[in-house]
Amino acid sequence: MERYPRRHFLRQMGVGVGASAVASVPQLPGLTAPHVSKKLNVALCGLGRYAGYLAEGLAVSNYCQLAGLVSGTPAKLEQWQKRYTIAPKNCYSYQDFDNIATNKDIDVVYVVVPNGLHKDLTIRAAKAGKHVIVEKPMAVSVAECEAMIAACKAAGVQLAVGYRLHYEPYHQELKRLGQQKVFGQVRLIEVSLGYHLDGIPPTDWHLKKALSGGGPLMNLGVYCVQSSRYVLGEEPIAVTAQFGPVQHKDLYREVEESVTWQLEFPSGAIATSTSANNMSVDRFYAAADTGFFELSPAVSYGPFRGRTSAGELTFPDINQQAAQLDGIGQVLLANQPLPNHIAGVEGLKDLRVIEAIYQAARTGQRVRLTG
Amino acid sequence: MERYPRRHFLRQMGVGVGASAVASVPQLPGLTAPHVSKKLNVALCGLGRYAGYLAEGLAVSNYCQLAGLVSGTPAKLEQWQKRYTIAPKNCYSYQDFDNIATNKDIDVVYVVVPNGLHKDLTIRAAKAGKHVIVEKPMAVSVAECEAMIAACKAAGVQLAVGYRLHYEPYHQELKRLGQQKVFGQVRLIEVSLGYHLDGIPPTDWHLKKALSGGGPLMNLGVYCVQSSRYVLGEEPIAVTAQFGPVQHKDLYREVEESVTWQLEFPSGAIATSTSANNMSVDRFYAAADTGFFELSPAVSYGPFRGRTSAGELTFPDINQQAAQLDGIGQVLLANQPLPNHIAGVEGLKDLRVIEAIYQAARTGQRVRLTG
Repeated sequence: MERYPRRHFLRQMGVGVGASAVASVPQLPGLTAPHVSKKLNVALCGLGRYAGYLAEGLAVSNYCQLAGLVSGTPAKLEQWQKRYTIAPKNCYSYQDFDNIATNKDIDVVYVVVPNGLHKDLTIRAAKAGKHVIVEKPMAVSVAECEAMIAACKAAGVQLAVGYRLHYEPYHQELKRLGQQKVFGQVRLIEVSLGYHLDGIPPTDWHLKKALSGGGPLMNLGVYCVQSSRYVLGEEPIAVTAQFGPVQHKDLYREVEESVTWQLEFPSGAIATSTSANNMSVDRFYAAADTGFFELSPAVSYGPFRGRTSAGELTFPDINQQAAQLDGIGQVLLANQPLPNHIAGVEGLKDLRVIEAIYQAARTGQRVRLTG
Repeated sequence: MERYPRRHFLRQMGVGVGASAVASVPQLPGLTAPHVSKKLNVALCGLGRYAGYLAEGLAVSNYCQLAGLVSGTPAKLEQWQKRYTIAPKNCYSYQDFDNIATNKDIDVVYVVVPNGLHKDLTIRAAKAGKHVIVEKPMAVSVAECEAMIAACKAAGVQLAVGYRLHYEPYHQELKRLGQQKVFGQVRLIEVSLGYHLDGIPPTDWHLKKALSGGGPLMNLGVYCVQSSRYVLGEEPIAVTAQFGPVQHKDLYREVEESVTWQLEFPSGAIATSTSANNMSVDRFYAAADTGFFELSPAVSYGPFRGRTSAGELTFPDINQQAAQLDGIGQVLLANQPLPNHIAGVEGLKDLRVIEAIYQAARTGQRVRLTG
């Protein structure tokens, strides 16, 4: 069995994956052809594990391409530069990153550093006049999200959050089934995501509150919060939550090892979730008035497997990162505003719920949410 | 889609179902053959919907047979008496029920009346010198369970709780997978059971606290509590819970319409569940250290469908009531003590958890459980 996320996340990429990803992105009015002559030039800011997935996605994207690199580690910068044939003038350290402002070769900065650094680098990229895509969770607090949105607005650039699942066909179907009430009103959602991180080194940034903002709720639970919200098309009005018992006390000194929570929505629907670093779980289930729909696996990089009370769900297994980059790239290239579900306001809404979950778990009290 | 439990519970019974049920019950030492010459004579006390299922099970059981009837409704008594060819001397009203003490034709009373009446009828049956099987939930409080256990002990009769799933092969497998740690320690259980009772009449006893003891937690949630406990082989040490919002305020004046709860176990495992009368949900999922196992449907009368991380689970679809009656009947015929997992002490343990769930939901506080 798989014990460490690197292996969980490993995924075979087939020939033609990029093309099928593009096929799932609807053409926007104003765009003339699926294969545009100019691609958006994206700089990856942070060259960790997930940046590797994004580089794979960029390699097959029809609307974006890898054009720049930002890293605090010169050796990594050199390695990536050679591997992806990036011009040295498009490579930055965090010290000289602000010079990217004068670099016409870069259109977008994709911020993919530890969560606690999202805010500063997003604001610096915005001030440099670049559109920003920031990985989830958008930041470590509502206040940071607000500052990021304000900075992008002031700079006249767009801000997207790396919510890959909005471009994934199984999740697009979940959203349709829920929001269009295909099986009537959804009453109960059970969605959980966890990985068995027994091999996580004690120095990993995910364990440091200042860098991560929190434990698995921040990194995994955000998907559960997201999917609960977009399947229902509603915002939660109340939250209860419980921290799980800590198994690895030596590792989990600053952040939770697991947390379980319950969201209550205006329609009366309830969503219950667990996110954890000490168990493998990856599933989504919705009970609606006249049927159910579910995915398992559900939230990882796929391949997903799903069914409804009416039968199996079968969609192509796509390159999620390419699909997301295509979806966002297409909008930015067309100079159109990003839809709300992928914009900064969406990340902020998730952080509002996440803050309430932490408060509920810490105090043992039901936390009410308004607007 | 199905909207009312009668239809949910409807199940086609195939030829030879009784035989396959018996096949799943291991032979006890001391019993000579699967087809014993004498069968236990069972009186059904209460002739409601579920008594009908028990009568079907009794008709194909190899160890028990329907021999007596108890009802407060003379017309019902007459109808059943004719249908099942029961001697008039074996039929009782609640007024003359205690006369069953002198009736050598009755060995066991199966109490299948509204929950709030379980205690009194169990104690009367015990005082009449009859073994008792009482439907789940065993009673409406821990105190009642204790009184029932004491009465049966004093009368020298055995007390079983109608936990049909202990004799159901999918659940026997769940128990084995969990307790024997086939996929390592179980970390998370998600198990929920709900039915869409839109058509429930306002006069239904399930809605009256005095008769039901509570809402769906009592009638459906008890299975979730049970299976969490027997899959882990542990007793919960802490409980949190939340009542769901009430959709049908006219109906749910005395009991909850839905409730969600979380159990914490000594191993650190967590079980999360919802039981509800306003949604259809019927599923069990366990995430363990090196794999998962799940059933969906999981808790109803079947047929169940299951899989583990190692592949599909396939067991015969049995007559659950016949299997349960065979399992209990076999032990009683052999004059052996009932195993704990089917005895009164088991029902008491579930009530202890159920009381804690209600307390946690009512107060919003985490409730600790000891022993």
